[in-house]
Amino acid sequence: MNEFAPVLDDEAIAVARVLANDHVADVVEALNHEPHETAVELLCAVPFERLVEIFDQPELENAPKLTEALPRSKASELLTAMSVDRAADILRELDAAARSELLGALAPPLRATLLSILGYPEGSAASIMTTEFVSVPSDWTVGRTLDYIRKVERTRETVYAIYIVDPETQLLLRATGLRRLITGEPEDLILSVAPDRMPVTVTPLTDRETLAQTISKYDLLALPVVDHGRILGIVTVDDIIDTMVEETTEDVHRFGGMEALDEPYMKMGFLAMIQKRAGWLCALFLSEMLTANAMQSYEGELEKAIVLTLFIPLIMSSGGNSGSQATSLVIRALALREIGLRDWWRVALRELPTGLVLGSILGVVGICRIMLWQYLGLYDYGPHWMLIAATVGAALVGIVAFGSLSGSMLPFALKRIGFDPASASAPFVATLVDVTGLVIYFSVALVILRGTLL
Amino acid sequence: MNEFAPVLDDEAIAVARVLANDHVADVVEALNHEPHETAVELLCAVPFERLVEIFDQPELENAPKLTEALPRSKASELLTAMSVDRAADILRELDAAARSELLGALAPPLRATLLSILGYPEGSAASIMTTEFVSVPSDWTVGRTLDYIRKVERTRETVYAIYIVDPETQLLLRATGLRRLITGEPEDLILSVAPDRMPVTVTPLTDRETLAQTISKYDLLALPVVDHGRILGIVTVDDIIDTMVEETTEDVHRFGGMEALDEPYMKMGFLAMIQKRAGWLCALFLSEMLTANAMQSYEGELEKAIVLTLFIPLIMSSGGNSGSQATSLVIRALALREIGLRDWWRVALRELPTGLVLGSILGVVGICRIMLWQYLGLYDYGPHWMLIAATVGAALVGIVAFGSLSGSMLPFALKRIGFDPASASAPFVATLVDVTGLVIYFSVALVILRGTLL
Repeated sequence: MNEFAPVLDDEAIAVARVLANDHVADVVEALNHEPHETAVELLCAVPFERLVEIFDQPELENAPKLTEALPRSKASELLTAMSVDRAADILRELDAAARSELLGALAPPLRATLLSILGYPEGSAASIMTTEFVSVPSDWTVGRTLDYIRKVERTRETVYAIYIVDPETQLLLRATGLRRLITGEPEDLILSVAPDRMPVTVTPLTDRETLAQTISKYDLLALPVVDHGRILGIVTVDDIIDTMVEETTEDVHRFGGMEALDEPYMKMGFLAMIQKRAGWLCALFLSEMLTANAMQSYEGELEKAIVLTLFIPLIMSSGGNSGSQATSLVIRALALREIGLRDWWRVALRELPTGLVLGSILGVVGICRIMLWQYLGLYDYGPHWMLIAATVGAALVGIVAFGSLSGSMLPFALKRIGFDPASASAPFVATLVDVTGLVIYFSVALVILRGTLL
Repeated sequence: MNEFAPVLDDEAIAVARVLANDHVADVVEALNHEPHETAVELLCAVPFERLVEIFDQPELENAPKLTEALPRSKASELLTAMSVDRAADILRELDAAARSELLGALAPPLRATLLSILGYPEGSAASIMTTEFVSVPSDWTVGRTLDYIRKVERTRETVYAIYIVDPETQLLLRATGLRRLITGEPEDLILSVAPDRMPVTVTPLTDRETLAQTISKYDLLALPVVDHGRILGIVTVDDIIDTMVEETTEDVHRFGGMEALDEPYMKMGFLAMIQKRAGWLCALFLSEMLTANAMQSYEGELEKAIVLTLFIPLIMSSGGNSGSQATSLVIRALALREIGLRDWWRVALRELPTGLVLGSILGVVGICRIMLWQYLGLYDYGPHWMLIAATVGAALVGIVAFGSLSGSMLPFALKRIGFDPASASAPFVATLVDVTGLVIYFSVALVILRGTLL
C-alpha cells in the first residue's frame, strides 16, 4: 500500500452514502452543511431522479446558485422534471440574466406557466401554487378517474385532492378526495362521490397568512387557486407549513425591533446583518432622543429634586413593559382574526382598566420599596419622602395605564395605515411610551411636590 | 295573524340555516359567537352525524362545557363516535368528576384507549395522537388492503398513510401512501408498493415543536407514534397545524413579557388577564428596582453633573433595543434548530462585533445630536460639552455591545437550565441590560469627566 496515495475524505464518503440511501430531507440537510463546490460535485454525481427529489425540497439552501452551477442542459432538464412551484421559486431568486437564459431553454408551455407564476407578487397564493394537480371533467366516471390518477400519479404533487370541472366551460364545480373515490362504484359518475358543496377556494392574490388560516380552519390537504371560476393551481399543505414557519420567523424578528432576516442567522453576512438591525435601531434612537428634550425642559425641577431622577429608569421601563404585553396580545389576536380593525374600542375599553389595575399593583410595590428603604435606613429620601413615594405610586398608575393603552392601540394604527401590525415591536412601544412616561412623571411630581420640593 | 305570537329570532334562524348547510368549520365559527344556552339548544337540535362533525373541530370553543351540557347518553354516544384524539382533548379539560362519569359510560376498550392517551403529558405526541389509523399485516396484498380501506374509510381520520406491520410481532415495518397503493397490482404484496425504508417515526413523549419540525421537514401527512417498535397512533398534519398556531401564540405572548393566554384575548376574564400579566410585570419591576439602587450609589456624581441625567433614558433604551434584537434572532434560530446549545460561543463571537459596530453608529449619531444642539444654541451643555458628548458616545458603544451580547446569551442560558428560550422576552432583556447600562454609563463618565465635571 502506498501511503501517499490520495485518500478519500472521510466526510465526503459519509455524505455520498447519505446521498445514495437516506430520506431526501436528510440528504438536503447534509448538503446544506457542505461548501458550495463540494455540493455541486456531489449533485453532479447523483442519479437524475434523485437530483430532482433533492431540488424539490424547499429546505435546500442556495438552490438557485446550485442550479446555475449545474451544466445548462442538466439545469433545464431539472427545471422541467421538478415540481412547477419549486421551479418558480428557484427562478424567482436568480438574477434576470440567468433567469431568462434558463427559461429560454425550456419547452414553451412550461415556460409560459412559469412566467405566469413569476408574474404574481411574492407570497401570494399564485406565486406558491403548483399547477400539477388532478382535475377531471364532471362527466367522467369513478373508474375512469381512478385509471387517470394511476397514470399521472408520478407527475402530480398530490392526487389526494381531485377537482371536478365543467367539461364545456372548465369552471370548477366540486372537489373530492381520493379516499371518497376508492369507496365509489367504478361505473358511477365522479360527482356521486363528491360532497354537494362548492369547495373552499382562494384567489391568486390571497396572502400567505389567509392561506394558512383557511387551510387550518377547513382541515384541507390542498387549496385550489381560482380565477374567474377556473382553477389555476393548488397550494398544498406542506407548502403552507413552510410558509407558516417563515412567517413566524419574520414576526419574531420584527417584534424584536428589526427587519426580518431572509437567511438563517449563522449564514447571514456581517454587513447584511448590520444593515437589517441598524435601521430600526437608529430610528428608535432618534425618537428616543425626545426623552433628552423632555428631560431638558424639566431641568429646573431636576436640580431642585435630584431624588426624582433615581426612579426615572424604573418608572419608564414599567410603561414599556406593560405596553409590550398589550402589543403582543393585540398583534396575535389580530393575526388569528379574533379581533378586527373595528374592534379597537373594545380593546381600548379592556386595556384601560387592566392598565389601571396593573399600575396600581406596581404603585403599591413601589411605595412599599421606598418606605422600606426609608425605615430600614438604607437610603434617606429626605423629609418629604412620603410625598416622593406618593409621586412614584401615582406616576406608575398613570404610566402603566398609558403604556397598556398605547401598546394595544399601536398595532391597530399600523394596520389602519397599511403596515404589518407585527411591526409594532416591543422596542417601538417602549420608545413611544418613554417620552410620555417622563412627562406624566414630572407632571405628577409638579402637582404633588409643589410647595415642598418643587 | 296574531302579532303577539312568539317570533323566531332572526339571528337564530340564520344560525340554524348555517348549521344545516354550511361547511362544518363555518358552523363552528357561528356557534362560537352564540351564548352558551343558545349553542346547547342548537346542538341538541342538530342531526347526530352533524353533531359529531362539529365536535371533531378543535376550533369549537368551550367544547368540554358543551359536552357536559348535553344529555348524558348523547354525550357518551358523541364521545364514542368522534375521533379519539378530540375526545381525549375534551375529557382532559373537564374536571375530574365529570371526566370519570363520562368515561364510565363508554365501552371498556374505548375507555382504556382514552385513559392511556390521557396519561401522557399535555402537548406530547401521544396526547394529541389519534388511534384511528390504517395498519395492515405485511402478508396482505394490495387488493385486500384496498378492500379493507374501503370498509373502514369512514372511521379513520386519514387513510392516506398506510402502516405495514409484522403479522406476528406487530412491529412497524414500512409505511406507504394510498397514492402508491392504487398504482399497484391487486395481487401484489402490499410491501411491493412501499418504499424500502423505515418510516420516520416519533416517540410518545416527543414534544409539539419537534413534531411540527419533523412533519414539515419530511413533508408527511401523518407521523406514526411508536413505542418499542409498535405503533400506538398517528399525529395528522391538521393537528400539527393547529399546534403550530397555538405554539406561535404562546411564543408571541411570552416574548411580549407575560404568561401565555390559553384563551382568545376577548374571551379571557378580566381577573384572569390581570393574573397572567401581573406576575411578570412585578418580577420585572422588582428587578428594575436595582436601577434605583445603582442611581443612588452614583448620587454624588449626579449632583455634580445633572447634565448626565438628561441622557439616561436614551442610553438605557438603546441597550434594551439592541438586546431585544439579538434575543429575537437567537430565540428563532434555536427554535428552527439552526443553532444548538453548544453554538453559544459562535453566536457570542458574532454578536460582540455586531454590537460594537451598531453601538458606534448610535454613538456617532448621539455625538452629532449634542454638537448640533450646542452649535444651534438649542441647549447649553456647559463648558465641557465636548467631554459630555464623548461620554455619551463611548457609553453607547459599550452599552449596545453589552446589550447585543447579553440579549443573545439569555436564550441559551434559559435553555441550558431547562426553561423555554422564548421566555427571554424583550422586557426581560431590557431589564437585564438597564442596570448594567447605568453602571457602564457612570463608569465611562468617571473616566472621561474626572477632573472636570466630576
